[in-house]
Amino acid sequence: MKVGVIGGGQLGRMLALAGTPLGMSFSFLDPAKDACAANLGRHIVAGYSDQAALKELAESVDLVTFEFESVPAETVAYLEQFLPVYPSAEALRIARDRWFEKSLFLEQEIPTTEFANVLSQADLEQAVTQIGLPAVLKTRTLGYDGKGQKVLREAADVVGAFAELGEVPCILEGFVNFSGEVSLIAVRARDGETRCYPLVHNEHHNGILYLSVASTDHPQQALAEQYAKRMLDALDYVGVLAFEFFEVEGGLKANEIAPRVHNSGHWTIEGAECSQFENHLRAVAGLPLGSVAKVGESAMFNFIGSIPAAAEVLNVANCHLHDYGKAFKAGRKVGHATLRSSNMAQLHQGIEQIKQLIAN
Amino acid sequence: MKVGVIGGGQLGRMLALAGTPLGMSFSFLDPAKDACAANLGRHIVAGYSDQAALKELAESVDLVTFEFESVPAETVAYLEQFLPVYPSAEALRIARDRWFEKSLFLEQEIPTTEFANVLSQADLEQAVTQIGLPAVLKTRTLGYDGKGQKVLREAADVVGAFAELGEVPCILEGFVNFSGEVSLIAVRARDGETRCYPLVHNEHHNGILYLSVASTDHPQQALAEQYAKRMLDALDYVGVLAFEFFEVEGGLKANEIAPRVHNSGHWTIEGAECSQFENHLRAVAGLPLGSVAKVGESAMFNFIGSIPAAAEVLNVANCHLHDYGKAFKAGRKVGHATLRSSNMAQLHQGIEQIKQLIAN
Repeated sequence: MKVGVIGGGQLGRMLALAGTPLGMSFSFLDPAKDACAANLGRHIVAGYSDQAALKELAESVDLVTFEFESVPAETVAYLEQFLPVYPSAEALRIARDRWFEKSLFLEQEIPTTEFANVLSQADLEQAVTQIGLPAVLKTRTLGYDGKGQKVLREAADVVGAFAELGEVPCILEGFVNFSGEVSLIAVRARDGETRCYPLVHNEHHNGILYLSVASTDHPQQALAEQYAKRMLDALDYVGVLAFEFFEVEGGLKANEIAPRVHNSGHWTIEGAECSQFENHLRAVAGLPLGSVAKVGESAMFNFIGSIPAAAEVLNVANCHLHDYGKAFKAGRKVGHATLRSSNMAQLHQGIEQIKQLIAN
Repeated sequence: MKVGVIGGGQLGRMLALAGTPLGMSFSFLDPAKDACAANLGRHIVAGYSDQAALKELAESVDLVTFEFESVPAETVAYLEQFLPVYPSAEALRIARDRWFEKSLFLEQEIPTTEFANVLSQADLEQAVTQIGLPAVLKTRTLGYDGKGQKVLREAADVVGAFAELGEVPCILEGFVNFSGEVSLIAVRARDGETRCYPLVHNEHHNGILYLSVASTDHPQQALAEQYAKRMLDALDYVGVLAFEFFEVEGGLKANEIAPRVHNSGHWTIEGAECSQFENHLRAVAGLPLGSVAKVGESAMFNFIGSIPAAAEVLNVANCHLHDYGKAFKAGRKVGHATLRSSNMAQLHQGIEQIKQLIAN
């Protein structure tokens, strides 16, 4: 099977590494000449709205999927004329826009923080009256890793905030008192079958995911799976979807969804029977889903900006290095490492060792 | 790190799949335009003795390794002028020639079957007198998967046998009464550190490996590791070496070695903490070796000639498909599947299911 991927970054790269053993071959559409997935398949160097390039892609593959959601709606609609596209244009339309996404949470009776649509500074001031401070103003689309958002703590922060984010459609979200952040990686097959990996505890540094630890028998696992299933069914979703939650008194509050394989699921490459990347490809290709059971205990560290020397990373027992082959640059995700152990004590020993390496 | 691989078949392909996450990129030299590793790196389409192509490879990578041992000695010597080559020319010279290989077994006091050098029909007749019948006449080089050999059961079989194998240097080997065949995948780092995976039980069909099952606490594990260590040290070997043994009354008899990653080690991709492919690359790149510990119980099936429908293979619980992307052809290894389970009962259930699929 020939798979087209919109985007050729590390997620595309890991999709290709997972799909090649299934006999799949890959074509990536990405404007960056140095896209790090490029040497695992064919690389069409073109913008995401370049219809000639999209047509070239559509004519050379059997289906198209995405490594990121910020694709113009017209791109998806254009591709859907020619071949199967997963997830669908409608699923992407909702998942990439915080207003649509949060409105669907409400519709599906999934608890989330208070929020309001903000299309002007006047809207913002009105929303602050309603929601109160502190609150977070976020662009409805294109925000990630803490970009495209501003925390409003006092009245002075509200002044000019809409202009600061570029006068694009935003939402204002109330602050959530949470004890932790977890994510659920879920996969839904073409026939509607859904499987969910164990919940993952996530820690962020400067708005970027830093550490994910897969949980065992998390008390909210069943609840998270219920919420995920409602969203997946509502979107008639096909593929992997990541669902981020805040852990709050008495349950979970939905934060956001990402309609793709997700950084907090990278541990599944070694830590689950079948990885999120393989399961995404199985789903979109109409193959049976693989087991989401854990294999031992796992934790994943992101390498942001640079990667410690490979010899040092690989000296940590049961550590698996993933160097994306990208140029080092401050704030850029350039790799990750997964620790897999048979017990939590050994896992935590490895976590401390990697923390030391990153700190040095 | 840029790695050059002589050969671009499935072993090269699996090396690239294991090395890409370590930040390595790959160039393959292989005369076959449809070499199945080609889309995971650069492909230099040229013969193994093409000096211009070898120079081009040497100038574009940091080191060279091999996916098969039947490379002309001149090729290896030529490459060694320019850059590090692992395993060394001397290790390859011995490992690819049954006479040198078996002579080294004797020198290292590793039990093996009786054997004699056969450079003519007269030598063969003399050897039969000494070793007796039945015996096996094998070409000293280039034999694999049961090719390049002839079983001699009675005097009539001896007549013209040397001519039948092409009048090339051969050895005659005495028959071994064995209860089973096992192999040991060993890896030796540049600094001499050696690690060995658990012994694997192998079953062959028509001379081709069909099923490998990783053992637990095999009574001959320590003995096999001693033998392997002697050979690796004698060859000052760097990388993965596969050591095949016959299980006999009272111990093991060495059959042969292969100076490369090996079919009977494919289960390590899912079934060991660090696969044979990653460990080979760690060794040749001068990185620390990874753990050879098993992750659950594993078995591997070869798909010879064709692969059952992917949907059926993936429906078997905890089954991992490896489709090499090669055209189907009778007798050709086109893929394999690895079963990984937490217990032997479940593993054997999976083995029966795959046997059924192959039989259909």
